[in-house]
Amino acid sequence: MSDERIETVSSLGERALVARLRSRIAETQGVKVGIGDDCALVETPAASLLTTDTLVEGVHFDRALTPARLLGRKAMSVNLSDIGAMSGVPRYALVNLCLPPTCSVEFFDGLYEGLIERAAEVGVGIVGGNLSATHGPVTIAVTILGVGDRPILRQGVQVGDLVVITGGLGAASEGLRLLREGVRLADDGMVIDTGIWTPSSEGPLARCVRAQLDPTPPLAFARAMSETPGTVRAMMDLSDGLSIDLIRLCAENSIGAVIDPLAVPVDPAVAMIERARGGDPLPLALHGGEDYQLLMAISPDNLDAVRDMAFVWDLPITVIGQFVVGAPVVSVQVGEWIEPLKSQGFDHFGFNEMQRPPVFGVT
Amino acid sequence: MSDERIETVSSLGERALVARLRSRIAETQGVKVGIGDDCALVETPAASLLTTDTLVEGVHFDRALTPARLLGRKAMSVNLSDIGAMSGVPRYALVNLCLPPTCSVEFFDGLYEGLIERAAEVGVGIVGGNLSATHGPVTIAVTILGVGDRPILRQGVQVGDLVVITGGLGAASEGLRLLREGVRLADDGMVIDTGIWTPSSEGPLARCVRAQLDPTPPLAFARAMSETPGTVRAMMDLSDGLSIDLIRLCAENSIGAVIDPLAVPVDPAVAMIERARGGDPLPLALHGGEDYQLLMAISPDNLDAVRDMAFVWDLPITVIGQFVVGAPVVSVQVGEWIEPLKSQGFDHFGFNEMQRPPVFGVT
Repeated sequence: MSDERIETVSSLGERALVARLRSRIAETQGVKVGIGDDCALVETPAASLLTTDTLVEGVHFDRALTPARLLGRKAMSVNLSDIGAMSGVPRYALVNLCLPPTCSVEFFDGLYEGLIERAAEVGVGIVGGNLSATHGPVTIAVTILGVGDRPILRQGVQVGDLVVITGGLGAASEGLRLLREGVRLADDGMVIDTGIWTPSSEGPLARCVRAQLDPTPPLAFARAMSETPGTVRAMMDLSDGLSIDLIRLCAENSIGAVIDPLAVPVDPAVAMIERARGGDPLPLALHGGEDYQLLMAISPDNLDAVRDMAFVWDLPITVIGQFVVGAPVVSVQVGEWIEPLKSQGFDHFGFNEMQRPPVFGVT
Repeated sequence: MSDERIETVSSLGERALVARLRSRIAETQGVKVGIGDDCALVETPAASLLTTDTLVEGVHFDRALTPARLLGRKAMSVNLSDIGAMSGVPRYALVNLCLPPTCSVEFFDGLYEGLIERAAEVGVGIVGGNLSATHGPVTIAVTILGVGDRPILRQGVQVGDLVVITGGLGAASEGLRLLREGVRLADDGMVIDTGIWTPSSEGPLARCVRAQLDPTPPLAFARAMSETPGTVRAMMDLSDGLSIDLIRLCAENSIGAVIDPLAVPVDPAVAMIERARGGDPLPLALHGGEDYQLLMAISPDNLDAVRDMAFVWDLPITVIGQFVVGAPVVSVQVGEWIEPLKSQGFDHFGFNEMQRPPVFGVT
């Protein structure tokens, strides 16, 4: 046996961990009092957005499959996505971390590196939080406050509005499948193991696993959508899968929707991988979840304006259907054939495996 | 075996749980969009306080000893205490809850009853949150936004300022000891079991166990202290114990403090119980923690003004010492005899038993 021991958060101790953090967090505009007092004191706009979301080990991530830095980035990004979905600008974050005492300091450092780096990329200041021991899994709750001056809500959809989504879908859930097949990323997001796949597949493998471990919601485009009020009537992010999230949007507006499944934009990397598998990429795109793209309701008159803006931000947008009079049901239509879309929903408290983030109203 | 089964959160399901919550949360002023969208949208003042704190089962509470409603109240109160410690007014709360699937719906309902009730008592609106499954312990993270127009910070102490505390100390830690001795409260805070104690002790037992399970930080007094700026030079809440928290206040101001241990106000119920035990109440008052009273630095000139205000709010205040030139060390002085006070600190990652809340800068 070697004398080398892994340095744990328990051996380092709480005070040293906090000191380690304070020294790494840069000053942010608007922060009058940051970490170190009873509360943070920050300048706030007249209207603020508040959102919080948690990643729980064994439910939302598997520590063995997830580099710590990317986990930190994701914990921040899933909250950024919610701010984006209201067309807001994220400003301040609080990080609430529960760690088992045996957790390595290397993991702790990597996690905060990811949190701090991702926050800095979007101009967010980490102003406080909480560090607690737990006998259970690593649990990371992030809360973000954003500017809510021109919010685009879930309500506001009208009959005849187009169902429009940004980006391609399915990559995050394909990425989860690939992780289970042994594909691994390093802390820097590069592929270090292609698992059951040949090295020649590295490009699409990396794209999908990164979509799972390090999602990048289209924040700038989402914010731009609020510049001409009314262009986008309603908006939300796609976190639990198109089939669930679209039904939620319908329910919020007491309206139905009809979509063309063949129009649903499958991420090209997913299409390549599923072709190689002999599988069907569409279920991943419809039900996969965690894509953190935007689902919008847009009047046909405004579609060109939105397309122009999407071009500026280099983001594909796709019309996949239309909102219709009726009960909050999503139907799929191919030619003359029409039937209800079954949402392959999961219930968070029936979990048997690593799943997608849950929703409790505000997430 | 009976056919009766306990209804669990898993059997009810996430969506039903959220619906259950939404229906119970009243409208609050300033809330433009509450639970149900991607984020909450709230009116915010020019300066806001942000704080977050977590209670973890097995670390901060034992579910077997804690009625669910009181646990919900405490999860809110420990955060309210931080807002109070900055002389703020709490406005909005987010609740981040991780539950094992086997958790009973009765527990879930009780917990939210306590959270909602405590929030309503102080005019706080629960505007969102997150509900997640976990394979581990029940974890309750609450985040509060408060008005930060006239903050009293930890910094600002001057040499010669008096060390002043509100209320009596030691009851919360005595309460924890009593819980371990079999004393039990019902959901309504009444004693239902006096454990190893005789029923005639019920009054002081109830007072101490309630201090542990349902703390009531002096929010109104804390807010009043900001009405005449400069009266209180610096302030923080006593969450981890006087001996630790006073050293923190000294460190933040690069200043020392000398206290008279005989002046430290022991809660009268603790005094009674320790007398019956043949024990010493002073260590509980000095090191016990979780009292959620206020620790203040007050210029001798302003003491009378603060006393008058404390009288209005029916809150005892006590001068226990003075801030002095020197390294951030707390000394105890009795007559001519003076020596450093040993802080019986705990480190959160060295936990072996249920402990007091940890501190990561902002808590």
